[in-house]
Amino acid sequence: MPPLSRIEADYLIETAYDPRAAAEAMAGEQSSGTFVPVPGETPELKERSAARIEALEIVDTVEAPSLPGAGHPKGEAPIRRARVTLSWPLDNLGPSLPNLMATVAGNLFELKQFSGLRLLDIRLPHAFADAYGGPKFGVAGTRRLAGVEGRPLIGTIVKPSVGFGPQETADLVELLAEGGIDFVKDDELQSDGPHCPFEERVRAVMRVVNDHADRTGRKVMFAFNITGELDQMRRRHDVVLQHGGTCVMASLNSVGLVGMVELGRFTELPIHAHRNGWGYLSRAPMLGWSYVAWQKIWRLAGADHMHVNGLSNKFSEADDSVIASARECLTPLFEDKPCIAMPVFSSGQSAKQAPGTYAALGSPDLIFAAGGGIMAHPDGPAAGVASLREAWEAAMASVPLADYARDHTALARALETYAV
Amino acid sequence: MPPLSRIEADYLIETAYDPRAAAEAMAGEQSSGTFVPVPGETPELKERSAARIEALEIVDTVEAPSLPGAGHPKGEAPIRRARVTLSWPLDNLGPSLPNLMATVAGNLFELKQFSGLRLLDIRLPHAFADAYGGPKFGVAGTRRLAGVEGRPLIGTIVKPSVGFGPQETADLVELLAEGGIDFVKDDELQSDGPHCPFEERVRAVMRVVNDHADRTGRKVMFAFNITGELDQMRRRHDVVLQHGGTCVMASLNSVGLVGMVELGRFTELPIHAHRNGWGYLSRAPMLGWSYVAWQKIWRLAGADHMHVNGLSNKFSEADDSVIASARECLTPLFEDKPCIAMPVFSSGQSAKQAPGTYAALGSPDLIFAAGGGIMAHPDGPAAGVASLREAWEAAMASVPLADYARDHTALARALETYAV
Repeated sequence: MPPLSRIEADYLIETAYDPRAAAEAMAGEQSSGTFVPVPGETPELKERSAARIEALEIVDTVEAPSLPGAGHPKGEAPIRRARVTLSWPLDNLGPSLPNLMATVAGNLFELKQFSGLRLLDIRLPHAFADAYGGPKFGVAGTRRLAGVEGRPLIGTIVKPSVGFGPQETADLVELLAEGGIDFVKDDELQSDGPHCPFEERVRAVMRVVNDHADRTGRKVMFAFNITGELDQMRRRHDVVLQHGGTCVMASLNSVGLVGMVELGRFTELPIHAHRNGWGYLSRAPMLGWSYVAWQKIWRLAGADHMHVNGLSNKFSEADDSVIASARECLTPLFEDKPCIAMPVFSSGQSAKQAPGTYAALGSPDLIFAAGGGIMAHPDGPAAGVASLREAWEAAMASVPLADYARDHTALARALETYAV
Repeated sequence: MPPLSRIEADYLIETAYDPRAAAEAMAGEQSSGTFVPVPGETPELKERSAARIEALEIVDTVEAPSLPGAGHPKGEAPIRRARVTLSWPLDNLGPSLPNLMATVAGNLFELKQFSGLRLLDIRLPHAFADAYGGPKFGVAGTRRLAGVEGRPLIGTIVKPSVGFGPQETADLVELLAEGGIDFVKDDELQSDGPHCPFEERVRAVMRVVNDHADRTGRKVMFAFNITGELDQMRRRHDVVLQHGGTCVMASLNSVGLVGMVELGRFTELPIHAHRNGWGYLSRAPMLGWSYVAWQKIWRLAGADHMHVNGLSNKFSEADDSVIASARECLTPLFEDKPCIAMPVFSSGQSAKQAPGTYAALGSPDLIFAAGGGIMAHPDGPAAGVASLREAWEAAMASVPLADYARDHTALARALETYAV
């Protein structure tokens, strides 16, 4: 990672025009471009501020445009896909994440030249590392607070998403704590409605968590959803802190970048960053954001835990994409400021996905969250938690699950129960 | 508009499953749904908190899935599109825009049931009108500050986007002010880099604007791009205010919802809301957001001006979509709190689009912004501005442009010059 003096972004583009001319239109639109000569414009000015095409490689030709509305040159022209790297002088914007968004992901996706445009990756000069705090806790801080070393945190989600009151939530947490859970999160739909007011929920849940910690010496990490306006997030964060809580959760697409930067600055607890809404940013293959690019911004802003979906999940994402996302969260952003975020695996997870996840990721630095994989275990939630721990012991020891299950009943019963 | 007691959202879905079953999965995922029975769950709880399907209408059958990754039932099944309306009890979340995002646009777009899912519209209970301020200036406040009544504000954009220093920017503004411009905006790529520091830019531009106002009695409205972190936005807003400026600009997708709500609360100036990045939210027809749904959230948060693109624009958006967006900005959100935002037309605009825009919108309450349509006028920027004013006079008097051009030279020359 040699230090960069310019901001770089990689794109996958699809165009019926000459790919280089189309890339030049992108570079122009996102820097000093004008459609007509402007008084005062000079070659020196353009040289200083223009975005540059650093690389362009044609990767494919396709039959039909991926997105509607694109133009096409006169006559027959192939629709080509290309990987393009653009770069910008840092001085165009300074080390500002909000302004970075407008630069690398602004008025590009609508350009008529393109029937597809996806942001694949970004690389930032070190000035961004100086300007932003990054995660305050990351893997080490999360492990310390949760009292879990050398294996994934086994987690779950309060379900039903909404409907429970504070006491019902606390009762469920008690059951899970007794079962040996490491981590529990609010559902992202649970906030501060009249049936489950935030402060009452924190008080009821933390009474259970603190009692359990007093007895066992280990405090279950509960991620309370503080998503809301700035003053609400501050107040809710302080409530969690006062009651001895060890994690807050925020929905990135609900809060937005300025809100997350603020939260990252004032938080005294790890931020569990939820990516709900990610589908609208990413699901069209030739549009939007890759997770690789997207997660860098939120890690710099302060996210300690990043959701990455899970293998064989209930959503539409393929396994290789899930693993690429998780690996990226564990890859340093800067040599002297790695900003590592702990990937959170979830969605239809059970004991069965542990070996595949470990084999693909090569690290136990993750939160492995299961709903049905714990709650629907035939011998109850405690056995569900045990089955996940056992599955990870087996995975990390390179023992096939079926072998390990011979003298681990909870795992054996899980393997009989879950389809994946 | 009868007052609503529940939050409603309309979607266009595409699924190979039974559309009602797929809609039930959406409703479950976004409210009290669980995959497995959970201790403490009761029918009363579900009844209280569950999202409801209010309407479902099959609108189409398609040959191939729009998005990859969707599941399909066993055997042959048609892929159908349907319009679905879901509703949620307000008490699930309370009148909170960030939590609304997670509810109506959260973990939906990735659900395996769907090969397409787009949020078309939202309707909110009055509690949201009580909780949020909406635009502080809107059409009336903007007209008052700009000194323009009964016709659109004629606007332009500082180009090149980046590269100019403060004095070069001010020189261009002087030229435009002399030419009779009503409104000028920073490019969204211009923020606070070392070549054009924000405060120096404000000082230089406002010297010109204030001098011109002293001489003519009319103050050009300049939208300074204050996009940045919260403390930066506050400071920049105050700088603009101190120097007699009348507008601030923010990029919605860069700032995010929490930042915009804060800005909406502290601003003493109209907020010119830039939608750059909108393409990644909307350009895949069967994914993401319609502008109709999206703009409601930002108007409630406080946006006074909303970008809507323009007719015959340089981007990929069709004209009917542009007009639908603009009309929506002028449609009241609540009877007693309309939250009207002034639509901003831009992108490849010239005198030629005025009649079509007026005919389709039926209102002069808009900002009509042109770059080349002003700067590239053969007789210079002043003639460019004049040609746009004349085009709007003609449009509003129902006189064909060619007729009006007979004794309006600037317009005549524009009609010769511009392709659209």
